[in-house]
Amino acid sequence: MVKIGILGYGNLGRGVEAAVKKNSDMELVAVYTRRDPKSLSIKTDTAAVKSTAELDTGKEDIDVLIICGGSATDLPEMTPKYAAMYNVIDSFDTHAKIPQHFANVDKASREAGKVGIISCGWDPGMFSLNRVYAESVLPDGEAYTFWGKGVSQGHSDAVRRIDGVKDCRQYTIPVPAALDRVRNGENPELTTREKHTRECFVTAEEGADLERIENEIKTMPNYFSDYDTTVNFITEEEMKRDHSGLPHGGSVIYSGTSSDGTKHVIEYSLKLDSNPEFTGSVLVAYARAAFRLYSEGVKGAKTVLDIAPAYLSAKSGKELRAHCL
Amino acid sequence: MVKIGILGYGNLGRGVEAAVKKNSDMELVAVYTRRDPKSLSIKTDTAAVKSTAELDTGKEDIDVLIICGGSATDLPEMTPKYAAMYNVIDSFDTHAKIPQHFANVDKASREAGKVGIISCGWDPGMFSLNRVYAESVLPDGEAYTFWGKGVSQGHSDAVRRIDGVKDCRQYTIPVPAALDRVRNGENPELTTREKHTRECFVTAEEGADLERIENEIKTMPNYFSDYDTTVNFITEEEMKRDHSGLPHGGSVIYSGTSSDGTKHVIEYSLKLDSNPEFTGSVLVAYARAAFRLYSEGVKGAKTVLDIAPAYLSAKSGKELRAHCL
Repeated sequence: MVKIGILGYGNLGRGVEAAVKKNSDMELVAVYTRRDPKSLSIKTDTAAVKSTAELDTGKEDIDVLIICGGSATDLPEMTPKYAAMYNVIDSFDTHAKIPQHFANVDKASREAGKVGIISCGWDPGMFSLNRVYAESVLPDGEAYTFWGKGVSQGHSDAVRRIDGVKDCRQYTIPVPAALDRVRNGENPELTTREKHTRECFVTAEEGADLERIENEIKTMPNYFSDYDTTVNFITEEEMKRDHSGLPHGGSVIYSGTSSDGTKHVIEYSLKLDSNPEFTGSVLVAYARAAFRLYSEGVKGAKTVLDIAPAYLSAKSGKELRAHCL
Repeated sequence: MVKIGILGYGNLGRGVEAAVKKNSDMELVAVYTRRDPKSLSIKTDTAAVKSTAELDTGKEDIDVLIICGGSATDLPEMTPKYAAMYNVIDSFDTHAKIPQHFANVDKASREAGKVGIISCGWDPGMFSLNRVYAESVLPDGEAYTFWGKGVSQGHSDAVRRIDGVKDCRQYTIPVPAALDRVRNGENPELTTREKHTRECFVTAEEGADLERIENEIKTMPNYFSDYDTTVNFITEEEMKRDHSGLPHGGSVIYSGTSSDGTKHVIEYSLKLDSNPEFTGSVLVAYARAAFRLYSEGVKGAKTVLDIAPAYLSAKSGKELRAHCL
């Protein structure tokens, strides 16, 4: 059994807990929290709830620590810190800062003789794998990534910060015409606006100026101004009834040629009922890989690109060759 | 530069040749043939055409030999034979016999201190990767593989052997209703007949009994009797005009749950203008991996499941992390 610790018990931490239950070779040993452990009620009877202070001793009896924090401020600090004590996994997803994060985790885990796998999830993660496989097989081609339809938590949060907004759910939606052109192998050049639209469901405070809110959303730089955005005002009941889930998904579509006029289109797509549960499931599969690599004496930071697929599977190489190849 | 040799110059060998041209870190050194080398005209000016007898000396100056033979009789003999002399790659695709083939190649390449990667292509190959990634992330689920729309060369050949048939092109076609049910996450049980239909385009000899031919096709055991099959008789001109390519493709669709009622659907699909050129492109990417593994001192047989994606890419780990992750 691979002994798993979870650091952080938000949506992602709960997703990891659910995923561990689906893997019979893994057990959740403890959830570590910065909150008062007594305030936390988890769904695994056999696991403990502990303070992060206990983790900080470096002496917890876990094989892999799955760090479920945010990429903005939590992970850049937490992952290198704990990589110096445990095998660790995270879902760091600020693409531009991955090289720096990798270097920090690599240094810590290498010195500790541990394995640290960063940026596991679906993008970065499963989408990255598919971009690299496709481009390696067909170097003469172009990769397109579409996200959605799904809830962007970053965009929902940005709207919630607007004066007069009580709650928001923002959906990112690929533009069907753009998807069609890419699937047809046209290799089009697409602007940001041509690739995705954004749709906001907003609950406003009583008496708030809805026109002003709508305008503030649509003109918000970085988040909305480069997109065609639709804003729908709904009641709290409607929000709860129709928008309580965190579905997401998307597609990596790669179109390339192997010789003049001979085209191939490769598409990888995800339709996820729950973004955090799927991300948690990816983290758990890579926790298995981290444990195995560590057992073989491997040290340092890795990404999904550095890990052979067989390491993720509970099946042996022999079983995989006989049944899955 | 990785020096490539190609053994066999049929459709697949020509596909590998085209793929090598698309990879600037690789060069085709020689094509080896069982035919008279003088009878062969290839598309790479800088490469030699040689007899397999020269290959048999074990002294050819190549880094990786890509063996482009058939799975029925060529590869079970050729791949272990040449694995004892060179790093080798093949596209062995008789799923049931992979364990035996793996064992044979492993023994030969291990003793020789070389690397042999078997069963590279799209199924086995890219489809296998996607089955294993999906199942590892969501162990509680079901994988469905659909092939087509595309030309099955085995089925086309089977029809050509019928008395009175001059030529045939057989298309395998997934049943849209089955695809829809799987994409909806219904996890249906599907019979062979419910998953695929078969469509034959046949050129018959003058005066042949078309009714008998159609009946012989539709009732042929293993190949057609378990399927709904359509037979169309066409002229030689129509065959040449409309059916000269070897397109193929298909989908691996995996549907699984991460907790009660929370479903996810993962789909990987290929639309290929040319089956042999795409398969050749996969073989070439894995030739790069074989060369790198060999350079690191790795020995023995491998499959696509044993190889980290980064080994396939011409980019460095640093470039991949910065641009593709």
